[in-house]
Amino acid sequence: MEQLYVIKIGGNIIDDEAKLRSFLASFAAVEGKKILIHGGGKLATKLAAQLGVEQQMIDGRRITDAETLKIVTMVYAGFINKNIVAQLQSNGCNAIGLCGADGNVIQSHKRAPKALSLAEGLGEVIDYGFVGDVDAVNTSLLKSLLDQNINVVMAPITHNSEGQLLNTNADTIAQETAQAMSALYEVHLIYSFEKAGVLLNVEDEGSVINTLTWDYYQELKAPVQETGAPRIFAGMIPKLDNAFAALNKGVHRVVIGKAEQLQELIKQQSGTSIVHE
Amino acid sequence: MEQLYVIKIGGNIIDDEAKLRSFLASFAAVEGKKILIHGGGKLATKLAAQLGVEQQMIDGRRITDAETLKIVTMVYAGFINKNIVAQLQSNGCNAIGLCGADGNVIQSHKRAPKALSLAEGLGEVIDYGFVGDVDAVNTSLLKSLLDQNINVVMAPITHNSEGQLLNTNADTIAQETAQAMSALYEVHLIYSFEKAGVLLNVEDEGSVINTLTWDYYQELKAPVQETGAPRIFAGMIPKLDNAFAALNKGVHRVVIGKAEQLQELIKQQSGTSIVHE
Repeated sequence: MEQLYVIKIGGNIIDDEAKLRSFLASFAAVEGKKILIHGGGKLATKLAAQLGVEQQMIDGRRITDAETLKIVTMVYAGFINKNIVAQLQSNGCNAIGLCGADGNVIQSHKRAPKALSLAEGLGEVIDYGFVGDVDAVNTSLLKSLLDQNINVVMAPITHNSEGQLLNTNADTIAQETAQAMSALYEVHLIYSFEKAGVLLNVEDEGSVINTLTWDYYQELKAPVQETGAPRIFAGMIPKLDNAFAALNKGVHRVVIGKAEQLQELIKQQSGTSIVHE
Repeated sequence: MEQLYVIKIGGNIIDDEAKLRSFLASFAAVEGKKILIHGGGKLATKLAAQLGVEQQMIDGRRITDAETLKIVTMVYAGFINKNIVAQLQSNGCNAIGLCGADGNVIQSHKRAPKALSLAEGLGEVIDYGFVGDVDAVNTSLLKSLLDQNINVVMAPITHNSEGQLLNTNADTIAQETAQAMSALYEVHLIYSFEKAGVLLNVEDEGSVINTLTWDYYQELKAPVQETGAPRIFAGMIPKLDNAFAALNKGVHRVVIGKAEQLQELIKQQSGTSIVHE
């Protein structure tokens, strides 16, 4: 099976012009088929502030009201997406920028308002607004573009097929795209991140776990007798649970590491590779 | 040869939500292959004002400084383009939104600053800023999308292949696209416009010329003995010169008429059809 790299870059790269330029040059140099998924960075927050649109965040997620949806559509699918594509072209890397509405590439539905539990504040209901949860990925369009040697750059905006654009978590788009494309390719899903990988000791950047298998993960998650806490940093557990879920849905390998080391992440010389066994 | 419709809609449709919705429903109902090219409308000007970015216009053309380029990229390639695509999807019309950088679909170069003539103000130089003049249209990507029954929606932002996005006149993009695609299709280039077509008498909306041939155009352009002025409204002459230039470069028919009458324009029941003879 041919390899496909699905690469998610985070806001810390988007926000730094020099880092982004250097990342895009190494992305362009990656041989083979690839899809880049970008988040938003601080630009949308900055533009909202300039326009006097108040931003409400719950659990690190933006509440997307109508004005905020307009801003993120402009910033993510317009400014960031098109500048990334133009820079890739200048690196000799043919690319096309898409949001989920384009060619119906990512279909989603609006997230239902969530009633909070007792611990969270019983009786309260959180409405995330124009936020989309992914329903389907159009793999045939993606394959047709990749077959023409066109690399795909995806902005985290999807649509519900009824004319409504929806703001969607970029990590989720990366995972859903990787899972769906696993029917057609050997997919390597790469998450860029501030740290060098999954650390055995969160205070030691040198303690990167090179390969994390399911069995080893169970071992690291088990509470240590002395402290009652798992050996692995609790904040990483949801990310790793998602990574193993992706493997269970056909993804060949999930890699977590620094965007600055993209070539090494691909060659398995850096970062943490999450594999079945 | 298969037919292809290249349809340009103006800002007056973009600015009016109800008109745009109704236009997109009739666009979706057009049978066969089609490309929609949209201008910008007043949204970019409004956003610039909100952000305190001063807009300089010369001869109806926006001077595109770096901040303005950022705004038009967000508004044209982001907000307007993606909302049009999402609405087309909701009408059962599969569509993909592109700017010129996407798949290298429209390559351009930055317009050189122009030294003014004596009449215009000798000695002065106008720098249009980040404005692009079209060099090439990637017909093979467009054909590949159309062959997959994906209609293309183009925003008037192009790129120079060196990483620079450029603001580009949407009428020009429509004309260049129509000309280039004429190698592959029988192209009908439709310009939407505020009036019902080219009028014989500018004050009489009923005096639409149904078919304008080259010979008839020469007749209408010739000065009338009594007044010394041409019979046709002088303001239309540059548009019509461009239309005949498009015919000379292979376009089958150019139509000028009201966007509200798209179906009739296509069936040649409304508007002005500009044809060789």
